[in-house]
Amino acid sequence: MKRIYDVLLAHNELKAQAFLEEMEGKNPLFVCTIATTETAKISGISAAGKYPEFTDYTPPADAELLLLGKCKCINGVPVTPEGIPTPALISMSALRLANIPVLVASGGLRVKPQIPFLDLGGNPGRDIRTGNAVDNVEEVIQRAALAGENLAKTADYLVIGESIPGGTTTALGVLSAMGIKAEGKVSSSMPENPHGLKAETVRAGLSAAGESFGSLAVNPIRAISCLGDPMMPAFAGLVIGAAAEVPVLMAGGTQMTAVLAVVEALNPDVLCNVAIGTTRWVGSDTSSDIKGIVSQIANVPILAADIDFSASRFDGLKAYERGVVKEGVGAGGAAIAAMAKVGGAVTKDMLLKEIERNYAILMGAK
Amino acid sequence: MKRIYDVLLAHNELKAQAFLEEMEGKNPLFVCTIATTETAKISGISAAGKYPEFTDYTPPADAELLLLGKCKCINGVPVTPEGIPTPALISMSALRLANIPVLVASGGLRVKPQIPFLDLGGNPGRDIRTGNAVDNVEEVIQRAALAGENLAKTADYLVIGESIPGGTTTALGVLSAMGIKAEGKVSSSMPENPHGLKAETVRAGLSAAGESFGSLAVNPIRAISCLGDPMMPAFAGLVIGAAAEVPVLMAGGTQMTAVLAVVEALNPDVLCNVAIGTTRWVGSDTSSDIKGIVSQIANVPILAADIDFSASRFDGLKAYERGVVKEGVGAGGAAIAAMAKVGGAVTKDMLLKEIERNYAILMGAK
Repeated sequence: MKRIYDVLLAHNELKAQAFLEEMEGKNPLFVCTIATTETAKISGISAAGKYPEFTDYTPPADAELLLLGKCKCINGVPVTPEGIPTPALISMSALRLANIPVLVASGGLRVKPQIPFLDLGGNPGRDIRTGNAVDNVEEVIQRAALAGENLAKTADYLVIGESIPGGTTTALGVLSAMGIKAEGKVSSSMPENPHGLKAETVRAGLSAAGESFGSLAVNPIRAISCLGDPMMPAFAGLVIGAAAEVPVLMAGGTQMTAVLAVVEALNPDVLCNVAIGTTRWVGSDTSSDIKGIVSQIANVPILAADIDFSASRFDGLKAYERGVVKEGVGAGGAAIAAMAKVGGAVTKDMLLKEIERNYAILMGAK
Repeated sequence: MKRIYDVLLAHNELKAQAFLEEMEGKNPLFVCTIATTETAKISGISAAGKYPEFTDYTPPADAELLLLGKCKCINGVPVTPEGIPTPALISMSALRLANIPVLVASGGLRVKPQIPFLDLGGNPGRDIRTGNAVDNVEEVIQRAALAGENLAKTADYLVIGESIPGGTTTALGVLSAMGIKAEGKVSSSMPENPHGLKAETVRAGLSAAGESFGSLAVNPIRAISCLGDPMMPAFAGLVIGAAAEVPVLMAGGTQMTAVLAVVEALNPDVLCNVAIGTTRWVGSDTSSDIKGIVSQIANVPILAADIDFSASRFDGLKAYERGVVKEGVGAGGAAIAAMAKVGGAVTKDMLLKEIERNYAILMGAK
């Protein structure tokens, strides 16, 4: 796979290269969209919290970490059941290394972060097995688009990330409702990807909503309302508003494909200005297939940050190489933006050092 | 008074000229801080709403007008009892003429705007006669400063405006608590400035708080908590965070002097990067004295947009020349920024034409 500095051109190579060149030396704004869904509390779905209720705290804690360099609504930082830290640690380290400004946008939260955040008028999401998962989808998309339009005037390009536990299951829900074959293809923050549980959850939601695979192919608003999560309308609206004017790097793993499908259905014209930015851990994941999903939707490029923790002195970071966490809070996109801003002068080794420095401070490790 | 294009150098002429030159050709971000206070509902205090309860809707409606070009939470636009439209009409016209991005920040609201807005963790304000007017002042200042730091990286400079009915009374409250002589000097949105009522209100608040004139000279947090409004910590925090990095134009009338006093007490170093931008109507107002207040606080320059509605074909705009409204929603600062962005290519005549065009659409006039 072709690489430019420590960024891999993972899909649609020429377009990926052109997109990366467009980012080079430019000043981005990083926007982190956060939200919560009860779907994350289904046993076995998510590794974002040690206990189901903890998933309500993960997004606000991630957002606090990005802006403050530490969490306020919890002690320490969000960790998996094995104690592996949130990917916000990667995003925060990358954004600080490259002095990239951050804005947090809420799509709907049960717990508010103790930092400034953009309120987009959404509510926390319900369990998708109800078939009635998200309120106000159209209104939130419109408000987010308005924010995106204005934010596009403040930066050369936008990097948009997300934090929402349970997000790959809701992604599978929206993709399935829209007729995109994603079963067995969405990623997981756990090494053992619970594909069966996700598929079963989505089937229950489709049934409860009176919908079936592909029945909402041209109705993305209803697809999110029934089977999505509140991060999606916030994220999709920001893309629609911003990508009409500037490039937008959608920073995330397979969850990005659901947002991509929504944007493609609502406003395909903006996709010429869009790329997905993820991590090598997602790009080379054998338990998921981001390219296989993206190919069904639109011809957008995928960039993957070649972050490598195999040589880390901390077991909590080395675990990423075993497929734990993989992506989230725009980690891959933040790393790519940091590298591109300085034309590769930030390398993966420098990034690892900065991440280890922050890991030591935040995890109390030596 | 010296002028550069249609901007008057109203105070500290050389510094004002230098500040304006620094703005020229640059790309600002306009931030509108909105909040509400029960103080506005004291009979005779404010012209921002026809009925006291209406003051809860004025700030969100102003914010909607800025971002959408129309209001959503009310029909039409905010008007004075005589039907004179909100100065947001001026701000919106100026910002759109010059393609300046807008962000709305809430310091604490009873009614939320139906647009994206930055939540800074504040609550609506109480009547200052209780001596216990604003919650969370220190926390809101800190969050706003964090937002300001990040926003400063997205723009060459910031223009910060406000919308809060009753704001000159709370300004008098904070100024008095801090020992700045402002009685008879704060402005009013009404042609007959109710100085006596404002002074009486502030005296009641000082007494209820167990404070007296000047007793909080070195405690601006408590001055706001007792006698201020929730716009102030949001605005002051944004200035403190942003002006450490980029120039900040504080866009407003005499309310700006209370924010200036707070910033001066908390972080005087940033004031070298600060100017006040207002309208000719405030600059030449004989019922108030912005320069007289500023001179007691800090040596910052004042710029005044030479907006002139005397030749307007609409009586609703001509009324501004009789001293109605005068300023608000950053009208003067927005006009100055629009002119400066294009080096004076936007003139006061062009601005009036654009305002009249929007007036006709929004007020249904011909």
